[in-house]
Amino acid sequence: MGRWRPDARARLQEAALTLYGERGYEETTVAEIAERAGLTKRTFFRYFTDKREVLFWGSELLERQMVTAIEAAPASASPLGMVGAALDAAAVRFEEVREFAGPRHRIIASSPELRERELIKAASLAAAMAQALRAHGVGDTTATLAAHTGITVMHVAFEQWVDDPDQKPFQQIARHALAQLREIASTG
Amino acid sequence: MGRWRPDARARLQEAALTLYGERGYEETTVAEIAERAGLTKRTFFRYFTDKREVLFWGSELLERQMVTAIEAAPASASPLGMVGAALDAAAVRFEEVREFAGPRHRIIASSPELRERELIKAASLAAAMAQALRAHGVGDTTATLAAHTGITVMHVAFEQWVDDPDQKPFQQIARHALAQLREIASTG
Repeated sequence: MGRWRPDARARLQEAALTLYGERGYEETTVAEIAERAGLTKRTFFRYFTDKREVLFWGSELLERQMVTAIEAAPASASPLGMVGAALDAAAVRFEEVREFAGPRHRIIASSPELRERELIKAASLAAAMAQALRAHGVGDTTATLAAHTGITVMHVAFEQWVDDPDQKPFQQIARHALAQLREIASTG
Repeated sequence: MGRWRPDARARLQEAALTLYGERGYEETTVAEIAERAGLTKRTFFRYFTDKREVLFWGSELLERQMVTAIEAAPASASPLGMVGAALDAAAVRFEEVREFAGPRHRIIASSPELRERELIKAASLAAAMAQALRAHGVGDTTATLAAHTGITVMHVAFEQWVDDPDQKPFQQIARHALAQLREIASTG
């Protein structure tokens, strides 16, 4: 116990989500999470700085993957086409963590502090995407508008995906939401 | 001193913005704000619950005016047409407070706590607009997409307006940004 194990991070995440769901996020301690995972507090702190980070771990990776997708998009792509490529990249990541996504989403919705944190992460992601679009030659205002539109689509698609009884892939839902947004923008 | 005066709120706001700019938001106390305005702390608390609220006072009014504009839009208007009406309503409000807008914007940008608060207010505004759109018969997903698109446009337009050397009206800038977004969405 306490030694490095390849699955320690996932076990800590699973234990944390279970306890947050059972007792509430506020009421759960790091010691309890570690115990439930069959690990020590010390091991917990090797993977996460605090109990909040368990919920947000991976958001830097998501941001990097979305930014990389924009960087890799052909120069001929439209700004919203590049954003679509970033959403496809997010889809890959989301499918990998689908089992955690629902419980995580409900825990975040239950706490104002966590909702704030989620908003900050989204604002940071929008800024990073806008910067990547600018680096790709997209004008300043267009880059900001397109990046925030991507966040809007991601947010709407995520809400549908996380509760979808048919477990449709995120990519399909996000592409549909992006098409809906294009439709809305072309009307009136 | 300390009695009700019709301009007390504006004087407190002006004093607070001046002090936040001079000394920093964190370093300024309510007592100093009241003193600078030539009023008492007690009077301060008659208008604001704390020094943060000085910066966010009026956001409920803004939300109400934007929601009212959606409610008053003709049923034949498109979802983004209704959002455009809400932005026109925001424009009226912003022009009324133009002299405070720049200093306020810079103080909020200087503090993570205040930026968080601003994000929460924007999320609340998006939710209220989406609800008003739904009440107007707009479908659930379309309402969310259109409302968040409105926030994106408002955010981009505000950044341009607050630093515009030509002091162009917010309405003109916001309408232009909305047209740009429509253009982006129709490309590729």
